[in-house]
Amino acid sequence: MKIAAYLDRGQPRVGIVASDLQSVLPLDLPPEAAALGALAVVELQAQGRPMPATGAPVAIDAIQLTAPIPRPRRNIFCVGKNYHAHAKEFAGSGFDSSAKAGGDIPSVPIFFTKVPESVIGPTDAIVVPKEVSTAIDYEVELTVIIGKGGKGIRKQDALSHVWGYTVVNDVTARDWQQRHLQWLLGKSFDTFCPMGPWLVTADECDGTNTRVRTWVNGELRQDAVTPDLIFDVPTLIETLSAGITLYPGDIIATGTPVGVGIGFKPPKYLQPGDVVKMEIDGIGVIENPVR
Amino acid sequence: MKIAAYLDRGQPRVGIVASDLQSVLPLDLPPEAAALGALAVVELQAQGRPMPATGAPVAIDAIQLTAPIPRPRRNIFCVGKNYHAHAKEFAGSGFDSSAKAGGDIPSVPIFFTKVPESVIGPTDAIVVPKEVSTAIDYEVELTVIIGKGGKGIRKQDALSHVWGYTVVNDVTARDWQQRHLQWLLGKSFDTFCPMGPWLVTADECDGTNTRVRTWVNGELRQDAVTPDLIFDVPTLIETLSAGITLYPGDIIATGTPVGVGIGFKPPKYLQPGDVVKMEIDGIGVIENPVR
Repeated sequence: MKIAAYLDRGQPRVGIVASDLQSVLPLDLPPEAAALGALAVVELQAQGRPMPATGAPVAIDAIQLTAPIPRPRRNIFCVGKNYHAHAKEFAGSGFDSSAKAGGDIPSVPIFFTKVPESVIGPTDAIVVPKEVSTAIDYEVELTVIIGKGGKGIRKQDALSHVWGYTVVNDVTARDWQQRHLQWLLGKSFDTFCPMGPWLVTADECDGTNTRVRTWVNGELRQDAVTPDLIFDVPTLIETLSAGITLYPGDIIATGTPVGVGIGFKPPKYLQPGDVVKMEIDGIGVIENPVR
Repeated sequence: MKIAAYLDRGQPRVGIVASDLQSVLPLDLPPEAAALGALAVVELQAQGRPMPATGAPVAIDAIQLTAPIPRPRRNIFCVGKNYHAHAKEFAGSGFDSSAKAGGDIPSVPIFFTKVPESVIGPTDAIVVPKEVSTAIDYEVELTVIIGKGGKGIRKQDALSHVWGYTVVNDVTARDWQQRHLQWLLGKSFDTFCPMGPWLVTADECDGTNTRVRTWVNGELRQDAVTPDLIFDVPTLIETLSAGITLYPGDIIATGTPVGVGIGFKPPKYLQPGDVVKMEIDGIGVIENPVR
């Protein structure tokens, strides 16, 4: 099942996306729940409550998709350096020459966060904050949505806590990420978290075995498969939940593969006018212009 | 003005603390607003709305204080290594031998976050998660509450965005902080953010010129003044808001002075049975048992 959040004549709504991706079945939710996007459905299900009734289908062309979770309830959990080839390109870029954040290949998962308000929709513009940074980079990431919360979740149980998946572009200001040592600031600027196009349930998409790709202006830049993650989804959930209670709707962006802008010499940072397209097989496409 | 959040016969309430600290004037807020604690007042004021009416005073001994903002709307912003002597003790502890997170004295503020659910009240227990870590440390921190939001806030305007201050203990699992390179995990375990005893408005307390102290089992461990911050409150707000929009109720813990447990040889980590008392002049005292 795919759950989308969208605007229909300006009103926030939530709906089930049809298999042919051509229409949406609106869910009957009160306005305050609809404003939460697909998070409303994740939370209802976590409470064991039934899916709301659906209304008549609406053509997908007649609505505007927003981020499936437009405003997460807390910062988005993100993982750094979680593909071997990316960890190497990152080290080779000279990024770590001053920060020395653990050398090439991490021995344990590296977690940081992005603020909830950095989230934008699947076709919204990424804004280069040109007075603040022009070293803006893209990072496609398989992103996990937690269904059943918990603490001390073990690897062997972890996938039962996964509600589903979505696509996140973990947009990064490389100069801020490097200069400030801890990555929050360079990862959290306004518009730095394109998300979508919807959430897909784990029974429909096996996020642990899919393909992630990025194109910038049509040029394929990132192309990897999620079995190549250094720390797989169960390991990430076990590590994160060891001391921190997880809640339904928590979002975990699992890291990006090789091919980011900083990996090129000279770096290929995003420029106003660029278009960044990302696709994860079994989930869908987000395509964000840069301005 | 001091605004406290508390339980009165089990019900969440918000009130104005009397000057003699012996009673509270309850504010007439609907239950969903009262559940936000003092954040409800900060947000009302940011909207230019009047203070709610007050009821009859309640003796402070008859109520149970909770964290003034029991559940922040997003992760708490925190600053690392923001006092010279602490940055040196931290380097001297050997912490940075593998992490190399910028040497002794940072050249720019280092920001990371704690998850909102790590917040506990001013007398609640800090729980040592003994199967996960026993290297648990305390950090007293002057903590800023944002009143008026904004982006691109300049130093000279920054204090006008400060609603007030509170006390935070930035409890830290040092092994997790070090091993995982980015500090989120080691800073975010459940119960790792004691906060209180209330919020104090900036007109009543000058957080930029006050004294912060920690006692563990009655032994004075930390004793510093906030003019010794490497990066002062206006600089922190300018840096944080350069690319990130700030909102009313945002929380910024400004860093801790010398005297934390890891600075001793051998380290003096918190043990079950310890009591951690923290005081900031002009704000108040939090005192949390460890179990």
